[in-house]
Amino acid sequence: MARIRLGMVGGGTDAFIGGVHRIASRIDDRFELVAGALSSNPEKARKSGEALGLAPDRNYGSFEEMAEGEAGRDDGIEAVSIVTPNHVHFPAAQAFLSRGIHVICDKPLTATGEDAASMEAAVRDSSALFILTHNYTGYPMVRQARQMVAAGDLGELRVVQVEYPQDWMTDPVETQGVKQAEWRTDPERSGAGGAVGDIGTHAFNLATFVTGLKGASLAADLHSFGPGRALDDNAHVMLRFDGGARGMLWCSQVAPGCENGLRLRVFGAKGALEWAQENPNELWFTPHGEATRRITRMGAAASDAANAVSRIPPGHPEGYLEAFANIYTAAADAIRAVQDGASRDEVMGVLPGIGAGMEGMAFIRACVASSKDDAAWVTL
Amino acid sequence: MARIRLGMVGGGTDAFIGGVHRIASRIDDRFELVAGALSSNPEKARKSGEALGLAPDRNYGSFEEMAEGEAGRDDGIEAVSIVTPNHVHFPAAQAFLSRGIHVICDKPLTATGEDAASMEAAVRDSSALFILTHNYTGYPMVRQARQMVAAGDLGELRVVQVEYPQDWMTDPVETQGVKQAEWRTDPERSGAGGAVGDIGTHAFNLATFVTGLKGASLAADLHSFGPGRALDDNAHVMLRFDGGARGMLWCSQVAPGCENGLRLRVFGAKGALEWAQENPNELWFTPHGEATRRITRMGAAASDAANAVSRIPPGHPEGYLEAFANIYTAAADAIRAVQDGASRDEVMGVLPGIGAGMEGMAFIRACVASSKDDAAWVTL
Amino acid sequence: MARIRLGMVGGGTDAFIGGVHRIASRIDDRFELVAGALSSNPEKARKSGEALGLAPDRNYGSFEEMAEGEAGRDDGIEAVSIVTPNHVHFPAAQAFLSRGIHVICDKPLTATGEDAASMEAAVRDSSALFILTHNYTGYPMVRQARQMVAAGDLGELRVVQVEYPQDWMTDPVETQGVKQAEWRTDPERSGAGGAVGDIGTHAFNLATFVTGLKGASLAADLHSFGPGRALDDNAHVMLRFDGGARGMLWCSQVAPGCENGLRLRVFGAKGALEWAQENPNELWFTPHGEATRRITRMGAAASDAANAVSRIPPGHPEGYLEAFANIYTAAADAIRAVQDGASRDEVMGVLPGIGAGMEGMAFIRACVASSKDDAAWVTL
Amino acid sequence: MARIRLGMVGGGTDAFIGGVHRIASRIDDRFELVAGALSSNPEKARKSGEALGLAPDRNYGSFEEMAEGEAGRDDGIEAVSIVTPNHVHFPAAQAFLSRGIHVICDKPLTATGEDAASMEAAVRDSSALFILTHNYTGYPMVRQARQMVAAGDLGELRVVQVEYPQDWMTDPVETQGVKQAEWRTDPERSGAGGAVGDIGTHAFNLATFVTGLKGASLAADLHSFGPGRALDDNAHVMLRFDGGARGMLWCSQVAPGCENGLRLRVFGAKGALEWAQENPNELWFTPHGEATRRITRMGAAASDAANAVSRIPPGHPEGYLEAFANIYTAAADAIRAVQDGASRDEVMGVLPGIGAGMEGMAFIRACVASSKDDAAWVTL
Repeated sequence: MARIRLGMVGGGTDAFIGGVHRIASRIDDRFELVAGALSSNPEKARKSGEALGLAPDRNYGSFEEMAEGEAGRDDGIEAVSIVTPNHVHFPAAQAFLSRGIHVICDKPLTATGEDAASMEAAVRDSSALFILTHNYTGYPMVRQARQMVAAGDLGELRVVQVEYPQDWMTDPVETQGVKQAEWRTDPERSGAGGAVGDIGTHAFNLATFVTGLKGASLAADLHSFGPGRALDDNAHVMLRFDGGARGMLWCSQVAPGCENGLRLRVFGAKGALEWAQENPNELWFTPHGEATRRITRMGAAASDAANAVSRIPPGHPEGYLEAFANIYTAAADAIRAVQDGASRDEVMGVLPGIGAGMEGMAFIRACVASSKDDAAWVTL
Repeated sequence: MARIRLGMVGGGTDAFIGGVHRIASRIDDRFELVAGALSSNPEKARKSGEALGLAPDRNYGSFEEMAEGEAGRDDGIEAVSIVTPNHVHFPAAQAFLSRGIHVICDKPLTATGEDAASMEAAVRDSSALFILTHNYTGYPMVRQARQMVAAGDLGELRVVQVEYPQDWMTDPVETQGVKQAEWRTDPERSGAGGAVGDIGTHAFNLATFVTGLKGASLAADLHSFGPGRALDDNAHVMLRFDGGARGMLWCSQVAPGCENGLRLRVFGAKGALEWAQENPNELWFTPHGEATRRITRMGAAASDAANAVSRIPPGHPEGYLEAFANIYTAAADAIRAVQDGASRDEVMGVLPGIGAGMEGMAFIRACVASSKDDAAWVTL
Repeated sequence: MARIRLGMVGGGTDAFIGGVHRIASRIDDRFELVAGALSSNPEKARKSGEALGLAPDRNYGSFEEMAEGEAGRDDGIEAVSIVTPNHVHFPAAQAFLSRGIHVICDKPLTATGEDAASMEAAVRDSSALFILTHNYTGYPMVRQARQMVAAGDLGELRVVQVEYPQDWMTDPVETQGVKQAEWRTDPERSGAGGAVGDIGTHAFNLATFVTGLKGASLAADLHSFGPGRALDDNAHVMLRFDGGARGMLWCSQVAPGCENGLRLRVFGAKGALEWAQENPNELWFTPHGEATRRITRMGAAASDAANAVSRIPPGHPEGYLEAFANIYTAAADAIRAVQDGASRDEVMGVLPGIGAGMEGMAFIRACVASSKDDAAWVTL
Repeated sequence: MARIRLGMVGGGTDAFIGGVHRIASRIDDRFELVAGALSSNPEKARKSGEALGLAPDRNYGSFEEMAEGEAGRDDGIEAVSIVTPNHVHFPAAQAFLSRGIHVICDKPLTATGEDAASMEAAVRDSSALFILTHNYTGYPMVRQARQMVAAGDLGELRVVQVEYPQDWMTDPVETQGVKQAEWRTDPERSGAGGAVGDIGTHAFNLATFVTGLKGASLAADLHSFGPGRALDDNAHVMLRFDGGARGMLWCSQVAPGCENGLRLRVFGAKGALEWAQENPNELWFTPHGEATRRITRMGAAASDAANAVSRIPPGHPEGYLEAFANIYTAAADAIRAVQDGASRDEVMGVLPGIGAGMEGMAFIRACVASSKDDAAWVTL
């Protein structure tokens, strides 16, 4: 199958996540990066594009120019990856969606609720696909966990514990030249949520993706431990789900020793599952009243949902980039299917889209509102 | 040093915790069990005493008889262990405290707030020591964790995550003949807290013991997943501490795959600690900005506070019974010191006493009150 | 049941293993220490006895005096624990065996092959029991492993990997005042094996205990890395078992980071088991073609053989002292049974005795002989 | 930098390792696959090439055709990956080396010693680079381990323990249609070594790569547990290194529960390291006399040698494919450097080449010879 022609907004050579998207798009050889507006600084954008070998006429100074330029070419991009700070997500996405170019966008959806509503409308009004890179849903054992819950292996769900601690903002790094921290602590660029928007949304998304539960309400206690930090760097959240399950979510960027400690535990009346992102090739399953099992990717007890997104045999670890690639590859399949005439609804499968994005925004909004009201319950 | 003459209330041969106390009292050879009222059922009490080799005249049918009988002997017991369901703690303790006999009592302190107040008064009015078996504080690496926090190794504390999940009440075992579950789900015998009283108090005590922090307020969401269960079997609690640290506590008795998953993580501005009861001989320490260290009991980085309560070299695991024995052995030291004329305040050291008991009762009360008020914050 | 009257040879207050034996003998309350010859230095022996509260007339200056003195008392000791350096095992054991006093003896059996043969004869000629404290066989999950292998859960056995690394002799501590290292590096007191005798015998015993296999031959490469050290501190051994299974044994006392890293893996045609002493409450079982299971002590998949030697519920770790106590408690049962008229053969059950001792001696002899012959195969 | 034009020999669509090489070559975008002779079956070769989108005129039926065809094109391949069974390595490599096309070749070097000698000559006589994919050397923490040993962090090396157990040949899968097993158990296609050639060479290479030690001699006990299996499926090897260090190597393909359990432990007079392939983002380091450290990829204690081959932040696991890509990317750098005029010797750096290949062949030969001589020592 021919590679999909891909553009990128943001992701200049000094940004972490741009490189991740580029590798992820390449792993299964389904995309070719042919255009970019790689920085909000036109000079930096062009230099980054040169370093990546973009043709000069497709190495744009702004996403507006790129949208217009590519829409006018016969060999224009079919899809674009948006990997900017949050406040740029909506305007950039709109520029491409309105031209029928498929959008692959970083989370959270937008910086503000207004933008989120506009994004929802823009997606509705477009014929193009909108894919949100909740990349942790791409891990094979996460897929298996979801499949096992859906199959009833855990019985009725009762308790969901999810956490995502990091330590990289323990010190006030946003004042020490760490670019990644600068925009993440800036409400103008990040929105109202700090840790809760950056990593809490990942945790909440993972919990709902695996359990299939819909959040009903939450009570949140957000706090900034970093001196002078405008946005939360630690969040404690109690969760209630439709149907009666309850849970807790903790995310933090000030937890020394924690790197990307995303971890999910789900307990039901008949069994339990545990998965941790830092050791993602294993899934722990306890059928109640039996010994706990270690299920490995591609191993003896791996399920078809997991095997479908695995590349190599058990014991040879796949990691973060392969999980991210699973999102890209599924996006490629979906794009080709739509191009072949399938409807948007048919092709998304488990791919996170605008719905997951709106749920994430609702989660951030509820956390911020609850915390302002001294952790009162807020409906999701 | 001569062994301390010990009596026991409760702990008949079919009870789990009585045997634990007896082993713990023997490990360092500081006690000899010489009297007992081992069950509230006189017949069962006597049979249990016979099985344990108690002399017939010291094998009592009730704690009242034992208190009176022993107080009247020259070789009467010096101390008594109370290992009954919660509602018996106070009347039994009072019978011995009022006769100057030292009391070693299971937690939580009592079943009701009224009893707790009476217990506090009874301790105040007695010359005898009152020791509460918050046994997890006896683990060497818990002692080291406390010492490291106090020494400032973590800097100013920010976040405290503690949990204690179990799975043994996943099914409605209280209706299936499991005696341990019967009284624990009965408000008459347990008090207003279920999981929160049985294991939540252990978790809260461990967190405050290690951090030295005082709880300020909490917001709790208690729930019973077991059908028809009167008391909570799962509790989600958000914590605020004096001085600004925040935390979360989760305890559950319906979490398949969890046996006694007590686990504490403490994060400060300069470092972090992690300890888990099921693998108690190791303590994980991360000085912020350095590699995480695995500190082992009696190993190269073990502290004097840990070594003081260790018996055997590193790599030969000590366990639950040795930690419990550390409470008993410290109690023996304290009892002998008081007998030698020291004041009660001087001898307790880190031993949990009436203060820890009252804090535990306040924790239970606050959890229940908050949960009834839809998880509103309640002052501790 | 009345406690068994116990004496002890060796184990003065500065020795590690004496205290372990005393605690182990107390945990289940089946022994009472009433006599001792606690050091080869009479002065030190008496001081140690005083510290332990022995009656002055039973606090002996030598094992010969104790054997004679106790044999002449109506309330003389019924059993004796021998916890001396290896070269004293035989003369001490003989003194008691010849007087019909049951012997509990540390491993390895003796320092020399001549002594071993004499010990075998002394046991044969005595009516008393002889129990060798291969204490690791007392761990519940080791008992379960043995039971599972015997039940055929692994199919025909193929490969046995066992290791026991330590690090405490990485530096030349025998020249730095470490008493434990002094006699262990002295051929006069230890015999011809260094690490291979001290810990290699434990590893070999564990492997044969669990698998039920009999060693056929071995090829060993012993080495001393400690400068000037007369005995091996590292041993690499290839093993062949009757029936065709093969294996490897590694023991070392110069492996930094290893405390008491005894670990056994057994692989058969139908499945595999793994157990590690430092985390002894879990046993890993893989039925070939299925997910690996974590079996926990007293947990859902624990076997009767494991439960029979467990005291407390799953998730509350038992450790080294409890495993050691399981040897003592089984010894107490065996002693009482013999006193009640049972034959010696009937009562030993899985308790290690003279047979295990002779096997250990054969293992040491073969390792030393093989290594001298450049690792040629030597029949066991 | 322009992508390197790459061809592939072997690696048709039903082969595991071909896909791995293709992904690894793409991850850092340094290669483009433009030609192939993807199977020894011309029909299968062409179909595989079509599936991969090769141009019809560069989708060859044999490596001979490809070598000739590509050598005659201006845009011919610059490098070729050889991913066939072992016996094809030499003839294929020779075809390209003799035409000055750089070769990236799977291990072991060849099936026979004769071919190995011829390969060595072919490399010597060519101007092209020869790179052997000992891919485990590409893991960042393996690079760090090597760097730390070289820096003296472990002091003088004493003991090296390496193992590589798998379980996929526990059953006689070579008779059950498993293609991967068929050629690996066939001496014609694999050579004289079974497990020892397939995975033992990886283990031996890893040990020498990290330690910098040169093997002096070995004693090996090879065995086939699979009924009727012509080549070893389990190998126990004792190792002696130049300079006095000793070690053990175990590899097995009949160890249930083991997937790709490659694990290395290195012990020196001043410290120790441990690394396991299945959890490759961490490296355990014990400075003797201090607590063990967990060093993570890109974490606080990661070294420059590790960081140089890492792509993403700590806590986001990189895996097998990224490690493999590190070999490819270094190969690309080396190829471009040679094209720019550098000498072959200058550009290889830590890349495994013909030297590593010859060492692997010597290892296999010595293992087989030793085992035939009842595990006598054989010089390497």
